Amino acid sequence: MKVLVINCGSSSLKFQLIDSESEQCLAKGLCERIGIEGSMITYTPDGGEKEKTVTPMPDHTEAIRLVLEALTNPKTGVVRSLDEIGAVGHRVVHGGEKFAQSVIIDEEVMAAVEECNDLAPLHNPANLIGINACRKLMPSTPMAGVFDTAFHQTMPEEAYMYGLPYAYYQKYKIRRYGFHGTSHSYVSRRAAEVLGKPYEDLKIIVCHLGNGASVSAVKNGKCVDTSMGLTPLEGLIMGTRSGDIDPAIIEFLAHKEGKSIDEIMTVLNKKSGVLGLSDNLSSDFRDLEDGYHRGDENAVRTMKTFSYHVAKYIGAYTAAMNGVDVICFTAGVGENAPLVRNFVCEYLGYLGVELDQEANRKRGEDIVITVPGCRTTVMVIPTNEELAIARETVRLVG
Amino acid sequence: MKVLVINCGSSSLKFQLIDSESEQCLAKGLCERIGIEGSMITYTPDGGEKEKTVTPMPDHTEAIRLVLEALTNPKTGVVRSLDEIGAVGHRVVHGGEKFAQSVIIDEEVMAAVEECNDLAPLHNPANLIGINACRKLMPSTPMAGVFDTAFHQTMPEEAYMYGLPYAYYQKYKIRRYGFHGTSHSYVSRRAAEVLGKPYEDLKIIVCHLGNGASVSAVKNGKCVDTSMGLTPLEGLIMGTRSGDIDPAIIEFLAHKEGKSIDEIMTVLNKKSGVLGLSDNLSSDFRDLEDGYHRGDENAVRTMKTFSYHVAKYIGAYTAAMNGVDVICFTAGVGENAPLVRNFVCEYLGYLGVELDQEANRKRGEDIVITVPGCRTTVMVIPTNEELAIARETVRLVG
Repeated sequence: MKVLVINCGSSSLKFQLIDSESEQCLAKGLCERIGIEGSMITYTPDGGEKEKTVTPMPDHTEAIRLVLEALTNPKTGVVRSLDEIGAVGHRVVHGGEKFAQSVIIDEEVMAAVEECNDLAPLHNPANLIGINACRKLMPSTPMAGVFDTAFHQTMPEEAYMYGLPYAYYQKYKIRRYGFHGTSHSYVSRRAAEVLGKPYEDLKIIVCHLGNGASVSAVKNGKCVDTSMGLTPLEGLIMGTRSGDIDPAIIEFLAHKEGKSIDEIMTVLNKKSGVLGLSDNLSSDFRDLEDGYHRGDENAVRTMKTFSYHVAKYIGAYTAAMNGVDVICFTAGVGENAPLVRNFVCEYLGYLGVELDQEANRKRGEDIVITVPGCRTTVMVIPTNEELAIARETVRLVG
Repeated sequence: MKVLVINCGSSSLKFQLIDSESEQCLAKGLCERIGIEGSMITYTPDGGEKEKTVTPMPDHTEAIRLVLEALTNPKTGVVRSLDEIGAVGHRVVHGGEKFAQSVIIDEEVMAAVEECNDLAPLHNPANLIGINACRKLMPSTPMAGVFDTAFHQTMPEEAYMYGLPYAYYQKYKIRRYGFHGTSHSYVSRRAAEVLGKPYEDLKIIVCHLGNGASVSAVKNGKCVDTSMGLTPLEGLIMGTRSGDIDPAIIEFLAHKEGKSIDEIMTVLNKKSGVLGLSDNLSSDFRDLEDGYHRGDENAVRTMKTFSYHVAKYIGAYTAAMNGVDVICFTAGVGENAPLVRNFVCEYLGYLGVELDQEANRKRGEDIVITVPGCRTTVMVIPTNEELAIARETVRLVG
């Protein structure tokens, strides 16, 4: 079956058409500046040239119409007609406590997703707009919703409750949800597969280190803890997000800087993280790694602090699971920054971790990077959220 | 030498007179409601009756005058004259980056402590008032300042920096400081002493679990990380303080509840922690332990979540030090809640921890609570911050 995977933001839309039998990506692309002047679509068929077209997209329906047009274009398209697309899989950011699994989208699901808007006011409404646009243009094609939070719904109460008045959980559902669930699920399963061990027997820690970054603890095939919380701001230091801080800093800064709480939140989300910590050197780890090698003190501080926090989460989750068998690095930084993996693993000698430096320098493949016989295996597993969404979609539709 | 130890709050003052040779507490007490109607002083000489006197204390000078009067009282006092008091040791909460050690108090020190007021607006001004009052009444007695933050000043940059704009560190000194330093220092040293091993060779984690609670990692005699941050709000779930939360919760709650940031901070400091999490059952672990045993679900949730967070910090700091030799429990809950120690240690089998259940039930002494031969030793070490302050004072004055 050919599955169209849609990841819809408020003014952008990423898509991939995936053949579920071969698990090949047939075409992919991106719509940008939807509803804004200068909107454009980028489209790349597998093995073909990337083409970029600047064209008006007043709304998401028009954006998706252009995606479908590109996919069926007689010259560069990859399907003859829309009938060849057997299903659509939508990434949905927040499923709250309502969705512990992916689901076939119907009216009831739409309403339930809308009820979670509060918890992800920037993302869920955009996801819903994308779903509605697709349903309008492909009314008879089945659609699945795959939630970023669903994989983490197996967390026990002691992992998802904060030390806050219990009434806030009851009234507003304030608790840890976690994100990147599709990636954590995909990578942890894939690690077991590559090692040829039963997923249900392993204690796995996944470090999804991208511009957004999170760690999860997966015990016997179930997520038992993760570093992002009510929102994707908590946890590791990220590209521009602060991650964990003393909550009192918000008040302290608001008074010092004469800023409102919303302004401080913008600082914590957009101006912090490795960008802020490196005194605005860069939010891109390639720049930070270059800086580190030339001895730039902002880069050194940032690389060390970032890696230290990853190591501490690995330590914490090892306690959470009373041990660990496999540690996986994934996503942009996790897959492509051997220096970060090196720094992190230097803390983990007590778990029996010893890196194979040559393996650690390789890129782009599922690989074990510890020397043979280590008590704890460290791996790099490239993530593939679109493929995971396509698989989920086929499972539900199939 | 006889050392008067003073711990001065904004409207209260705790004191102990300690004989530094025998390390005995000769008398102790508390002034309450200073500057408020109904102020009173409680005084207990060693081996004697506790006496409570309601008497006006318009200010801290009057409170300290009453303390000195009680200590020299011909009937119940423990010294004949003030000349017998060789030195005064003052607990000071925040020493910022200025004080990595205790110091003899002089004008310069007073000015430097005042410069840290910003970082501890409730505590440091009160400490200064207490110091000034003492200097007025005992002008020729040497005085030392012992800082709650000093022990943690050895933390490396990667442990004390947040993922925030670097300018905030430069401008406002926003960083992790840590508190309870006197206790963490005392307990970690004492653990090495009891085990008969060199302090400088050990990796020790101290869990100071009281109404305020913090964990520290002490590697080779130096603190390398601790769970409290810029303020004592960060870290573990405490009696009424939230500890770590997603920073975005503050904005979320402010909007939902229509509260100002200051009102939310009051909730996080006074209505959260185990009190809030237990749906207002209690902030006292004795009540929570009772509740747990009768199966009260609020107590069960709270005990489990609190303990889980302690276990995660132990795990994180084990990674921070690349291993751990000794884990110490101290302070009210750490010393007196075998159930909490049990819950925490259940996560730590991978470190070779196996509790001796009989030893774990004992109270009030320095004791190893793991079975012989464990790779990691777990201990209960009653803390004694006053004695630690007296020792520091003698070291400086002596």
